[in-house]
Amino acid sequence: MTTETKTMTTKQVADRLVALCREGSFASAIDELYAPDIVSIEPPGSNAPERLEGLENVKQKTVQFDAMVEAHHGITVSDPVIAEDHFAISMVMDCTFKGMGRTTMSEVCVYRVKDGKVVWEQFCFSPMPSQN
Amino acid sequence: MTTETKTMTTKQVADRLVALCREGSFASAIDELYAPDIVSIEPPGSNAPERLEGLENVKQKTVQFDAMVEAHHGITVSDPVIAEDHFAISMVMDCTFKGMGRTTMSEVCVYRVKDGKVVWEQFCFSPMPSQN
Repeated sequence: MTTETKTMTTKQVADRLVALCREGSFASAIDELYAPDIVSIEPPGSNAPERLEGLENVKQKTVQFDAMVEAHHGITVSDPVIAEDHFAISMVMDCTFKGMGRTTMSEVCVYRVKDGKVVWEQFCFSPMPSQN
Repeated sequence: MTTETKTMTTKQVADRLVALCREGSFASAIDELYAPDIVSIEPPGSNAPERLEGLENVKQKTVQFDAMVEAHHGITVSDPVIAEDHFAISMVMDCTFKGMGRTTMSEVCVYRVKDGKVVWEQFCFSPMPSQN
């Protein structure tokens, strides 16, 4: 028996992240796959800060997002496209937000992997004018 | 006979861009698919400027890249992942650079489409230390 763990490849990280996102297990994905010094980027004009650093801040963003959601109706996540230490997926979420009604959110999500952990994520979408 | 042209969807732009990139026709992709106010983003530490704006500047970047290449040995471009007005592809290029030898470049490329044209592109890769 050994406690040695092999460093995950970009493809292994991507496939695991996709599996967890398809279950809606975003917090688990962060716990399991993200590095302590994760950097998270949102587009200008989104509700979230344009740049966050550190595992706790990024987890907190997920908690805040979850708090806005009244009901999840479905999520569609593509298979990843992979280039060495980067990969991208598309994600479409169908949610009802508290006080805002049901909407569909679509984004391309890009990730960088280093030493088997996600160290950088960027969400690419066009914020709705009402979010500005 | 009519000169009216239909605005291309994100998927149509993505599929056409992929087809042109698979042929190595980057200049044609810019001419055919890019908007005059295109914004082009490279990662910190790459050889190219981190942000360029305007069709002529972005075309010039392609010309400068081509001038560094002695021989193209192959290119692999993924199918696109698409989320509303954004899409991403992975691209792996096998080139010999003048005075630098043969190398493989891998990147995730993200694009935003507006009114049937690419208005924003971002290349995601980790520059080699020698590029810093």
